[in-house]
Amino acid sequence: MAVKIGNYVRIKGKVQIGENSKIHDFCVIGENPRKKAERDEVIIGKNAEIRPFTVIYKGNIIGDDFKTGQRVMIREENEIGDNVSIGTGSVLEFGNKIGSNSRIHSLCFLELTEIGKWVFVGPGVVFTDDPHPMLCPYWDKCLGGVKVSDYAKIGAGSVILPGVKIGKHALVGAGAVVTKDVKDEEVVAGNPARFMKKIKELKCYKGYFERPYMWPPYTEDGG
Amino acid sequence: MAVKIGNYVRIKGKVQIGENSKIHDFCVIGENPRKKAERDEVIIGKNAEIRPFTVIYKGNIIGDDFKTGQRVMIREENEIGDNVSIGTGSVLEFGNKIGSNSRIHSLCFLELTEIGKWVFVGPGVVFTDDPHPMLCPYWDKCLGGVKVSDYAKIGAGSVILPGVKIGKHALVGAGAVVTKDVKDEEVVAGNPARFMKKIKELKCYKGYFERPYMWPPYTEDGG
Amino acid sequence: MAVKIGNYVRIKGKVQIGENSKIHDFCVIGENPRKKAERDEVIIGKNAEIRPFTVIYKGNIIGDDFKTGQRVMIREENEIGDNVSIGTGSVLEFGNKIGSNSRIHSLCFLELTEIGKWVFVGPGVVFTDDPHPMLCPYWDKCLGGVKVSDYAKIGAGSVILPGVKIGKHALVGAGAVVTKDVKDEEVVAGNPARFMKKIKELKCYKGYFERPYMWPPYTEDGG
Repeated sequence: MAVKIGNYVRIKGKVQIGENSKIHDFCVIGENPRKKAERDEVIIGKNAEIRPFTVIYKGNIIGDDFKTGQRVMIREENEIGDNVSIGTGSVLEFGNKIGSNSRIHSLCFLELTEIGKWVFVGPGVVFTDDPHPMLCPYWDKCLGGVKVSDYAKIGAGSVILPGVKIGKHALVGAGAVVTKDVKDEEVVAGNPARFMKKIKELKCYKGYFERPYMWPPYTEDGG
Repeated sequence: MAVKIGNYVRIKGKVQIGENSKIHDFCVIGENPRKKAERDEVIIGKNAEIRPFTVIYKGNIIGDDFKTGQRVMIREENEIGDNVSIGTGSVLEFGNKIGSNSRIHSLCFLELTEIGKWVFVGPGVVFTDDPHPMLCPYWDKCLGGVKVSDYAKIGAGSVILPGVKIGKHALVGAGAVVTKDVKDEEVVAGNPARFMKKIKELKCYKGYFERPYMWPPYTEDGG
Repeated sequence: MAVKIGNYVRIKGKVQIGENSKIHDFCVIGENPRKKAERDEVIIGKNAEIRPFTVIYKGNIIGDDFKTGQRVMIREENEIGDNVSIGTGSVLEFGNKIGSNSRIHSLCFLELTEIGKWVFVGPGVVFTDDPHPMLCPYWDKCLGGVKVSDYAKIGAGSVILPGVKIGKHALVGAGAVVTKDVKDEEVVAGNPARFMKKIKELKCYKGYFERPYMWPPYTEDGG
């Protein structure tokens, strides 16, 4: 099955998109970056659904079953696995890696961020990478993004400081400002974020299970 | 007076828009949801002004005098009263109800949120609905949105946790992370948000009145 | 060199753009404000780069070397100096002044905000201007925006309360909620933001310098 392309779509340069994909109206695929990208093409797997007003720059490699909301922006030099969705209005600057089956929700910002597999990022999350922005003569030598390990969950509206590492199965509470590394299976919240409990100590309010996420943890790939 | 439709506008399926309305350039009205919506149409009242790059899905009922900023996104199954405005870049996911005369400002996120009448929501507010996102096997059985009562004011950049109820005439301070219910006429702030004072104890810095909002409260409909 | 204009661009009314500028696809330049603006035109200097889905209203004066990311929105009555960039998705409501060489990052919100020169504003920052929004009968008589002095740095995801003044060379930490004025050369963080240290007490983690930003401060124009 061929790729369906909507109205008023701009495709620029070398763009390769897998079968059964759909590019909705008003998208720009293959936008030219400020500096020439190392890779001069866009590669997107099969079954993609790219919603209106999305811009994807040259120099991106994206897996199968990719979904975007409206007006997603993806700059150059990102690597995205299979079955990833990026929500409406989110901004992927350069240099992010996003593992398979992860979901980035709406209105998020990522730059030089490394996201594992099966990670959930809620709406309005900001990942930073610049400890001393502008006017430090070496500001760009200090850039270092956040690393989020597999199965972690990052709550809505949280802000993660540059270089922070978030462990496997960790949970960052909504609105947290995370200034230090978070260990595996820990829940943090607050500004600055502090240890609250272990994820296995969370309660299932509705009483479906003894614990949400169950323990040992439920993961669709057994991780 | 007829409906004015700008350039490069996409109207899909059954769309009913009242007289004296304007759909600006580059809008998509009647977008198809992932799953077929219960209602297969868009109904918008008279005097609407839908600004550029806005997308409204099928399955929405919207009252008179509706205004959007640029690039608003409104997914399926929302009910919106009369004289509501949604600011630039805001995202209404599915299942919100917004009462008449309420204002949602720019860059907000709402899902399964119930907003009363005469409510003010400042820019950059995130309403959550998912206490244990992803990888809990029953994550979607726990979804429960926020309920904001009439005349409440939600400060800029605040984050409201799933299921929280915010009382009538309550005020949530800018940047608050609201983890618990807020009572009528209370002012909360901080992360986590804590009781600060009653709204009738606020000061009018400029000295126009003894108290801002006056007391008994000033409401255009006497509520 | 002439101005390059992309596809599906809408230019309305009196728009003056300097040489060697580029307006990308799907932009709207010269949008009409709700009320007739004092100035009925858009003036933009040379070497501008206006990226896709950007809307600039009538009544703006913008200097040379202006850059926008995607889908920036600039309402009427803004004054912007030379060499300013506004990041993807940011919203400039009416009445902002932005000094030369300042950078506003992605997904920010500004209204009645005064930004000096060489200022850095990180992604997701909200500047407020309305201490008692809606339903106070004089709400619009109290409007007062934030003033950010030259060389200040405003961390990602922070929220600045109405009327707050931020001093020269000050640094607001990521995720801070700033409720009070910040003095020159001070670093604040937290919710509410509190004094942490002087900027000259920051550490250079990588050891390139004794202090980031050096001291006396490094500024490209010696300020």
